Amino acid sequence: MHQERAYVIWIPVSWLWVVSVAVAQPGGVATLSEVSKECIKCHKDTNPGIYQQWGESRHYRANVGCYECHRAEPGEPDAFEHFDWQIAIIVSPNDCARCHPRETAEYAASHHSKGARILGSLDNRLAEVVEGNAGFVTEGFPQGNSAAAVNGCWQCHGSVVKVLDEGELDPATWPNTGIGRINPDGSEGSCSACHARHAFSAAQARHPDNCGKCHMGPDHPQKEIYYESKHGIAFLAFKDKLHMDRAKWVVGEDYHLAPTCATCHMSATKDQPVTHDVGMRISWNNRPIISVRPEVSDAKLGLLGKDVPWQKRRDNMQNVCLTCHGNQWVEGFYVQYDALIELYHEKFAKPGKILMKLARPLLKPASFSNKLDFIWFELWHHEGRRARHGASMMGPDYTHWHGTYEVAKNFYAELVPELEELIEKGKAGTDPARVEAAAALEAKLHEILESENHRWYLGKMTSAEAKRRKEAAEQFKARYKH
Amino acid sequence: MHQERAYVIWIPVSWLWVVSVAVAQPGGVATLSEVSKECIKCHKDTNPGIYQQWGESRHYRANVGCYECHRAEPGEPDAFEHFDWQIAIIVSPNDCARCHPRETAEYAASHHSKGARILGSLDNRLAEVVEGNAGFVTEGFPQGNSAAAVNGCWQCHGSVVKVLDEGELDPATWPNTGIGRINPDGSEGSCSACHARHAFSAAQARHPDNCGKCHMGPDHPQKEIYYESKHGIAFLAFKDKLHMDRAKWVVGEDYHLAPTCATCHMSATKDQPVTHDVGMRISWNNRPIISVRPEVSDAKLGLLGKDVPWQKRRDNMQNVCLTCHGNQWVEGFYVQYDALIELYHEKFAKPGKILMKLARPLLKPASFSNKLDFIWFELWHHEGRRARHGASMMGPDYTHWHGTYEVAKNFYAELVPELEELIEKGKAGTDPARVEAAAALEAKLHEILESENHRWYLGKMTSAEAKRRKEAAEQFKARYKH
Amino acid sequence: MHQERAYVIWIPVSWLWVVSVAVAQPGGVATLSEVSKECIKCHKDTNPGIYQQWGESRHYRANVGCYECHRAEPGEPDAFEHFDWQIAIIVSPNDCARCHPRETAEYAASHHSKGARILGSLDNRLAEVVEGNAGFVTEGFPQGNSAAAVNGCWQCHGSVVKVLDEGELDPATWPNTGIGRINPDGSEGSCSACHARHAFSAAQARHPDNCGKCHMGPDHPQKEIYYESKHGIAFLAFKDKLHMDRAKWVVGEDYHLAPTCATCHMSATKDQPVTHDVGMRISWNNRPIISVRPEVSDAKLGLLGKDVPWQKRRDNMQNVCLTCHGNQWVEGFYVQYDALIELYHEKFAKPGKILMKLARPLLKPASFSNKLDFIWFELWHHEGRRARHGASMMGPDYTHWHGTYEVAKNFYAELVPELEELIEKGKAGTDPARVEAAAALEAKLHEILESENHRWYLGKMTSAEAKRRKEAAEQFKARYKH
Repeated sequence: MHQERAYVIWIPVSWLWVVSVAVAQPGGVATLSEVSKECIKCHKDTNPGIYQQWGESRHYRANVGCYECHRAEPGEPDAFEHFDWQIAIIVSPNDCARCHPRETAEYAASHHSKGARILGSLDNRLAEVVEGNAGFVTEGFPQGNSAAAVNGCWQCHGSVVKVLDEGELDPATWPNTGIGRINPDGSEGSCSACHARHAFSAAQARHPDNCGKCHMGPDHPQKEIYYESKHGIAFLAFKDKLHMDRAKWVVGEDYHLAPTCATCHMSATKDQPVTHDVGMRISWNNRPIISVRPEVSDAKLGLLGKDVPWQKRRDNMQNVCLTCHGNQWVEGFYVQYDALIELYHEKFAKPGKILMKLARPLLKPASFSNKLDFIWFELWHHEGRRARHGASMMGPDYTHWHGTYEVAKNFYAELVPELEELIEKGKAGTDPARVEAAAALEAKLHEILESENHRWYLGKMTSAEAKRRKEAAEQFKARYKH
Repeated sequence: MHQERAYVIWIPVSWLWVVSVAVAQPGGVATLSEVSKECIKCHKDTNPGIYQQWGESRHYRANVGCYECHRAEPGEPDAFEHFDWQIAIIVSPNDCARCHPRETAEYAASHHSKGARILGSLDNRLAEVVEGNAGFVTEGFPQGNSAAAVNGCWQCHGSVVKVLDEGELDPATWPNTGIGRINPDGSEGSCSACHARHAFSAAQARHPDNCGKCHMGPDHPQKEIYYESKHGIAFLAFKDKLHMDRAKWVVGEDYHLAPTCATCHMSATKDQPVTHDVGMRISWNNRPIISVRPEVSDAKLGLLGKDVPWQKRRDNMQNVCLTCHGNQWVEGFYVQYDALIELYHEKFAKPGKILMKLARPLLKPASFSNKLDFIWFELWHHEGRRARHGASMMGPDYTHWHGTYEVAKNFYAELVPELEELIEKGKAGTDPARVEAAAALEAKLHEILESENHRWYLGKMTSAEAKRRKEAAEQFKARYKH
Repeated sequence: MHQERAYVIWIPVSWLWVVSVAVAQPGGVATLSEVSKECIKCHKDTNPGIYQQWGESRHYRANVGCYECHRAEPGEPDAFEHFDWQIAIIVSPNDCARCHPRETAEYAASHHSKGARILGSLDNRLAEVVEGNAGFVTEGFPQGNSAAAVNGCWQCHGSVVKVLDEGELDPATWPNTGIGRINPDGSEGSCSACHARHAFSAAQARHPDNCGKCHMGPDHPQKEIYYESKHGIAFLAFKDKLHMDRAKWVVGEDYHLAPTCATCHMSATKDQPVTHDVGMRISWNNRPIISVRPEVSDAKLGLLGKDVPWQKRRDNMQNVCLTCHGNQWVEGFYVQYDALIELYHEKFAKPGKILMKLARPLLKPASFSNKLDFIWFELWHHEGRRARHGASMMGPDYTHWHGTYEVAKNFYAELVPELEELIEKGKAGTDPARVEAAAALEAKLHEILESENHRWYLGKMTSAEAKRRKEAAEQFKARYKH
């Protein structure tokens, strides 16, 4: 550590809206309300788990009971009369905001809260049309929904909750705790996506598995990557020493043996406060075919983050890293990470995107009715993301075996042969438009395969490359002389 | 929760046989037997782990020692003389029943105890013929076994234990703790499948990973689904607070922060006793191509459960759910779950089954000698189960990405093209039977692809569908106006 | 246990070199050095996590501070001046050897320390050429590296660390904690691969997830297999009772409820000392296409282990097993394991290797430019290893569903059809060499498919086989008579 480094000062993005909401979070009320006492009389017996979870929570000590959260004003869309009181089943971010205005405001400004907006998008074609049908008919949806969307997509992204008579919720849309659920009151999000059930535990929300409800699986295996990384390994070894249930939870102060997802993306450092806007420390959005900077995707959603450039966010993250790593370590890591993104972009994503556009006129028109649609989709949406996410969080197997290896295998052994077949069939046909399209695709494929990144595939290699490979092989052999 | 609900009263199915076995479980004996003391003299040194595990167990405090479990009557098939005593290596359910009659009776009535009956079935063709051979020759099996079956299938399903001379056990069949092991005394099952080694820990058996020995992997990833679900997330966050080693372990009374597999499928609620018959709370058997009700599969095995209808079992499960969830939540969940089963059945399983039957005459005769055999097998046995299991336990990635997405991908991008190739080849041939079979397959495939569920694939959509899709897209766009 | 067994006496292999290093490990120094106190003055604030982790370590109590490990002699390749002191970022095994000579000597003699020697090998073709390019240009590598290798392979295997000016480390090679990292001082290895960061925790190193950093994923899923096995299940249930942070950690003495990876492969038993040479208890090296004995692979690397036969190593492992298992159990297990290796070898690996050699002249010359290259590579490198590793550690799903099932599926439904297509095309061509090669391949494929292991695929079965299958089916049916 022979070079000094200007320290990052975190500028709270959230000040923009925090000024407009209530100033302080109340510490609770003096005694438990009479109404909540009434609720408990029955529900203690009928749903003892709910009662006991609540007894474990900070809400209990603050005398925040059933009614304080579930009460509804007459006229609220999902209000109904339950004995003598107006209540609602759903406690929306608006309800939580009565006591937690800062958290809900940060959350409302985050990508997380917009999760349900994808419903109805072209992306949803898979769950609604390809995998699904409109056979899931309920009172609120006489034209039906797709059970694949309801049980799949909506459970992470959130449903658009539909209210039936007397506050009953349509069973296609409830139960649902998707991160971007669109609630009857119009608010977006579900605080219980992370602070589950009635314990509302911050400790649980800090557990990596909590994020893993959605951030796992073939297309975004962040949970798996984390547990392969040394961060996850340390967490599993030391989790009992991390004081995960402390109110103040500052890395380097309150714990130091391992970080969780929350540590790096949300929680406090000695210089940064906790934030519920999870995008403020990431410098790449690796969701699209070609990664974009987060301010670009924030702008698309009209989020305030559109004015927070990725460099600022990277500074924020590096401020976390430096708690436990030296400067060179942190800067070296980012050099490696960026290099992987660049490799994926230049060698596979950009050429693939161009080829797919040229292939389109030669394919059956319905999207996903061609095997090639699936090959390309998985190449970027599954495998290409795994490589990028793997590098971002230091999980080498996800970067390589689940990532770049799969990308390359499917590029060369699936995508290219399928394109070659399309070209052959297209050229052999009689439709001049298709013959032309096939020729254009052939020319571009030829150009790409002849380029520096791909000519190995044709058995071609420049002399410079051959020399470099030979030297590496000699160094390799020399290491085996003993 | 504006509607009341008749409470489920659990009718113990087990009363049928419990009356015929010993009334009470003894609390142990007064002092450790002299024989067990002799055993310990050596084994304490030669196998200290066994001795120490036992020292951790309830058996230790109850003076149930080595001999109390391992003793054998002369003439028992696997009895042998060890110094002055007749003992056996295997402690079978019959042995455990001396003190635990209720548990072993419930277990004997369950699907679990019948696990080894699949050995020799057609299902076993894979491990014995396709993957394996008869090359694993042992003293007890001069004609050999398949090492793929021995190291794979049998380890979960159970071996048929073969006794050699002097109580020695054939090494193809031992070690083995498969759930349905067929023991030398004819009993079915292995208590140590779940209560492993010599600690016999109920706490361990309540851990989800215990079930995960077998309930994991591509064809029944219940462990993985659980850990994606909020149930598993809560377990990982709170497992130290669940009092998993208590004798009485009633959800809502003794713990309330998370359920494990045992909680929902076996353990006590305020209204239900613990049961070792794991099928009494499930309302679908999702194993076959097309899911069946559990009473149907119980009848096939001649189990008493044939008289317990799925509605009764669903009531049993809902009684567990209500510990921590309200009525609407529970009922809504089941509406969602059933809808996913129906989607899978109607769109993929039933048409696929019909198509495969029609394709059979066009295939090479040996089962699994055609690529199509594997495609179809994985479609229902792996992917289709994942979708159904994912929905049953609220793991959205398993329902969608590992489930319906894979089902649809392989239906449209693998199965249909393979069928089309079969049709083309069959029609071009000279064998009239094959030409006819190809025509029949073609007609059915055409009919299916033209049907409402599949016509999107042909680029066809009714005006009603198009209208619905357009509306959804407009709603989607409206959500992006900010 | 009716037969006695000669007890294994562990002959310490390590005595060969231990005699040549310093005799005892110092218990630390009396007070913290003045230099380390100076380091802490700043770093306590700039990197509080490092300071606090160290505060958790045994180093803290022994007054082994920053400088004691990071100090460098002038002239050391990566030394640089930091205020008044010569230090280096990397603490290499040579540095650790000052106090831990035995551990580093054992480690230097192990396969682990040679991990980075694969860099530049043909195996690396995938990451460098197929997946990668030379686009990751850094100061130390003007000709570039492959970001796929840097972020993938190197993170487990280790980089060849390159020093720039003033002790700065090239960011393609640092950060890196690969197990076989080649350090600026020429030493091989990274102690922090397992004893991560500044807590240097033995307890962490004993956690299975620690090994899982590298031993996981499609090609060597040891972590996943362990967690499926009863060993892993017991660990998850009982890990708080295993006293994992004890200095003395002898299985059967200090813990007995579960083993971790370390228990079986490295840690002390009542008869064996702990060793940092992880190969001394394994009797198969399952890495290659066809498994070899470990002394064979040790010889290839010039390791002392070349003189330690597998039988000796198996005795060492069985000595661990016997802590918790009886003789018959242990011996039976090895009979089962060996049988699986044999099945894989005879039925798939050996025939596949021969077929691939014959297919080579018919393939495009560049390795991995043919789909067949990937099929065969995954068959042995991924799936064949999973079967072997699964059997070695008793994970039945990995043995079967992720192992032999995948091997067989890809052999019959991918490899054979690809070979048949090559044969057809080759025979139809005009190049006599290719026609001849195709004929040779056809003859061998025919011979293999007609052999006992494979003729089921052709729908052929001898009468003896048919009889055996029929008997098994009858036994199966008899079990369903109730």
